[in-house]
Amino acid sequence: MTASRAWPDPRIAADLEALRERAPLTHCLTNVVVTNFTANVLLAAGAAPAMVPAVEEAGAFAAVADALLVNVGTITAPDAEAMRVAVSSAGDAGTPWVLDPVAVGALPLRTGLASELVRQRPAVVRGNGSEILALAGASGGGRGVDSTVGSEAALDAAHGLAAETGAVVAVSGEVDHVTDGEQVVAIPGGDVLLTRVTGAGCALGALMAAFLAVSATPLDAAVSASAVMAAAAERAAAGARGPGTFAAGLLDELSLLGR
Amino acid sequence: MTASRAWPDPRIAADLEALRERAPLTHCLTNVVVTNFTANVLLAAGAAPAMVPAVEEAGAFAAVADALLVNVGTITAPDAEAMRVAVSSAGDAGTPWVLDPVAVGALPLRTGLASELVRQRPAVVRGNGSEILALAGASGGGRGVDSTVGSEAALDAAHGLAAETGAVVAVSGEVDHVTDGEQVVAIPGGDVLLTRVTGAGCALGALMAAFLAVSATPLDAAVSASAVMAAAAERAAAGARGPGTFAAGLLDELSLLGR
Amino acid sequence: MTASRAWPDPRIAADLEALRERAPLTHCLTNVVVTNFTANVLLAAGAAPAMVPAVEEAGAFAAVADALLVNVGTITAPDAEAMRVAVSSAGDAGTPWVLDPVAVGALPLRTGLASELVRQRPAVVRGNGSEILALAGASGGGRGVDSTVGSEAALDAAHGLAAETGAVVAVSGEVDHVTDGEQVVAIPGGDVLLTRVTGAGCALGALMAAFLAVSATPLDAAVSASAVMAAAAERAAAGARGPGTFAAGLLDELSLLGR
Repeated sequence: MTASRAWPDPRIAADLEALRERAPLTHCLTNVVVTNFTANVLLAAGAAPAMVPAVEEAGAFAAVADALLVNVGTITAPDAEAMRVAVSSAGDAGTPWVLDPVAVGALPLRTGLASELVRQRPAVVRGNGSEILALAGASGGGRGVDSTVGSEAALDAAHGLAAETGAVVAVSGEVDHVTDGEQVVAIPGGDVLLTRVTGAGCALGALMAAFLAVSATPLDAAVSASAVMAAAAERAAAGARGPGTFAAGLLDELSLLGR
Repeated sequence: MTASRAWPDPRIAADLEALRERAPLTHCLTNVVVTNFTANVLLAAGAAPAMVPAVEEAGAFAAVADALLVNVGTITAPDAEAMRVAVSSAGDAGTPWVLDPVAVGALPLRTGLASELVRQRPAVVRGNGSEILALAGASGGGRGVDSTVGSEAALDAAHGLAAETGAVVAVSGEVDHVTDGEQVVAIPGGDVLLTRVTGAGCALGALMAAFLAVSATPLDAAVSASAVMAAAAERAAAGARGPGTFAAGLLDELSLLGR
Repeated sequence: MTASRAWPDPRIAADLEALRERAPLTHCLTNVVVTNFTANVLLAAGAAPAMVPAVEEAGAFAAVADALLVNVGTITAPDAEAMRVAVSSAGDAGTPWVLDPVAVGALPLRTGLASELVRQRPAVVRGNGSEILALAGASGGGRGVDSTVGSEAALDAAHGLAAETGAVVAVSGEVDHVTDGEQVVAIPGGDVLLTRVTGAGCALGALMAAFLAVSATPLDAAVSASAVMAAAAERAAAGARGPGTFAAGLLDELSLLGR
């Protein structure tokens, strides 16, 4: 049973209003390609980004932050250690967190780390079809950060992963899907230009983390983040000549949505 | 006694002209979120940015650079070591430098490093009110990179810090203030959109470093950088729909100011 | 004998069409200032960027990627080790690669590494005049990432370096030149705004890597990448107010070129 939810559904609008009001402090341990864009997406939407990657500090900060993102896109061994400390601290402190298993599958460091962390109760796991399949133990045949399978094809794997880990699983694709192992919510919309700007998916993971601090459930957080991103992308695409003006427009539209 | 100085004050205009003429090589040891934006702000204003983070190279480069920025926003232990080497080398070579104590207070690595470096004669210390209070030994109750105290409330701490260290202290806020422990200069203007783009404050610290290479005094450098950023921000905000177009416009306006 | 080649030369247009069709997976080991812009330039042109910097993963990924970029702009010792592993793996797997010797000359870590790697058969070496002179063993007197010699003055050094290493050598400047040690191709065009946005040269190196996967020869790859960047820059400059709108416009024009 797949439901569909899109902006301006009142639950999404209420979540966005709460995000803007509370400006959740969102600790991002993310990859070096997307740090700047991720922080700007969070700021545009109304959250307060912060990135504290040192192993000496990441744990303390995860305990006081309102939410945590762990994105393994460009991890090195010291990054992995800081992520372990942050996730452990988040677990102790009750800080909800998102795991983004970028390009897991064949690459050993990230695949091992993601397999380890996914068992430590992330509230949300977000990836494309290949990444979710790979993390669920299936063979995704992934090609770096691009997915070679559709998001619907990965839904079975997402169901299994959700049931096994207790996490909500979000599969990004032409249509995004979010499942808690029972319900499935489809989020239509968005624009193909999201795939022509680096880090749109990574920023979506960060936005899901921010929404975890204000939404009623992790499912709602993942759905609201996806729907807000999709709606802003549609508006930005309408005014863009190409990916450069689209990226700037996406930040503008995130800040303007619903106002 | 607080004076006020703003673009197009002739001292600021002369400093900007000198910056464009000499294009000071500005060595930035800064955080991974803002590297790109920082470099683009420096280029737009007329300086020549360079970032050389390896401990094997940071010292040699600090000796030949015209100015140095040390920003602890995302430091790890190896970064801290490179910063120590660079600051020591800058001291020996007479390279003026700026300390930006991002989020000091509770986080141990950066707080320890900033407390250590601030005693090594930075020409300028730049932060928001919480950071300046924390660095001065008061309890700032800081919340990541966002300040929870106004810049005026931190002025007492800034005075003390300036007197104790010999550094000019710049406190960013709705109105920026700069003090050398005796004079206080207020820099009005700017725009709230500066707080909706990541790294505007960090880039301002880098711009202060660049101005150190051309201004008559560190006080003038900090004031001119603040005033140039404020004026460009006002112009950019007038033409922006939101934070995305504002960030692009800020770079445009920095390059166009006074031409 | 210097030939000249510029967009819309049919060889360049055919290369760009092939790039868009095959979307080569381009592994970038590059500096922290330009990761985001580099990935966005590759995406806008039609390639598929990926950055895998861990020493545990960089080799495996270089073997499956279609091309590799090694840019030493902000290397640390662990980065250098990952680059060695990646280059070795690329050699074994037949993955073509580009070396961008940013700011080699006086700084020891990068200069040693670049001298070592240039002997391991890069398909293309790309730099400004100072960097090519320094890498060729002459004294470039380089000043960070900015060149203090014209690209034509460095042509002799480029010839020698190409003959010695078997690499195509591309010298960026007001007019770009590319040589395989016999032919020289000049690529006119571009715009001075390319020097006011950080990472334009670094992104050009990445684009050369991507074109290596589709062009007939490394010479063609370096020429086509340079010509595509130059043509997009001219179009972007025509619509820009300054460096901020230019950077966004450059991405737009890369995606629109020839369509």
